[in-house]
Amino acid sequence: MDIRIRPAARRDCDAIANLASALNKQPDERFDPFDADAIRRDGFGSDPQFAVVVAENAAGIVGYALYSEAYETSYAAAGYYLSDIFVVPEARRQGIGRQLVAAVARIARDGGRRFVWWASKESNSEAEAFYDTLGAVSEPVVAHALVFDVFEALAREAPTVAGRHNQADRG
Amino acid sequence: MDIRIRPAARRDCDAIANLASALNKQPDERFDPFDADAIRRDGFGSDPQFAVVVAENAAGIVGYALYSEAYETSYAAAGYYLSDIFVVPEARRQGIGRQLVAAVARIARDGGRRFVWWASKESNSEAEAFYDTLGAVSEPVVAHALVFDVFEALAREAPTVAGRHNQADRG
Repeated sequence: MDIRIRPAARRDCDAIANLASALNKQPDERFDPFDADAIRRDGFGSDPQFAVVVAENAAGIVGYALYSEAYETSYAAAGYYLSDIFVVPEARRQGIGRQLVAAVARIARDGGRRFVWWASKESNSEAEAFYDTLGAVSEPVVAHALVFDVFEALAREAPTVAGRHNQADRG
Repeated sequence: MDIRIRPAARRDCDAIANLASALNKQPDERFDPFDADAIRRDGFGSDPQFAVVVAENAAGIVGYALYSEAYETSYAAAGYYLSDIFVVPEARRQGIGRQLVAAVARIARDGGRRFVWWASKESNSEAEAFYDTLGAVSEPVVAHALVFDVFEALAREAPTVAGRHNQADRG
């Protein structure tokens, strides 16, 4: 069965939303606001925040990788952060996940970027085995997030930051 | 002693490089390529990959926070990823770290972004205590990176990805 890896188009947003929903149906995921409207708004609007590559076979879109720009001071290099990678269960064990990650690495390298990184939950042993086969270096860390009311409250502690900002503030 | 939090300017790159070098002098950090030239190139060039806020007192720049754009599908929202946060030892316990993170949250919120996230090594208990006081939600994860020869080899496995990409490929 032929697999084609290609950048997502606007017409793919519903299919991507369906896959993202399947990905997020993990036991400890509480939020699922990443629907087709959000994908169109944040991925295909005037200021896209991420890019997607999809894997397509005769059955349609069977996998996707979603990534956004990243910078790593330890390498002094730009790269990509891989937010989501997913292949539907019935299309696994054909190397599609590897092709998706390789495509993101290729796009990165072709754009002068030098790494791809991501974070995963320790509990997902199938995923961890896949990452090992890619040759990824892995390290246990703690992920921290300020979000919702805590984010709002901390933001309110600071005055509006005056002055000219560089790139990350244009959005 | 008055503290001022402000966006970094090009003239600050040497001071930021000195602080970044101090931050990276942790026992298990092997790389230190993030020097003033790299900061000017990647932060203050034609396509900036990150932004910096600095904390300044009468002694000069005593702390910085470095962040770049991020997207989180779980929230269906844009935010910032905080790569580095550092305050020199002699300026700690004055709330400067909190002011730096609050400034990044404020810049995020003023730009319609909705979270700030970062990853830390489990071994740094002083830092973890600080993150707790911010009210961050924390979760142990595994960080994975494809970099150097492994990244190059995987990129070479994929054909050039044809077609029009969205934002993350403009750089």
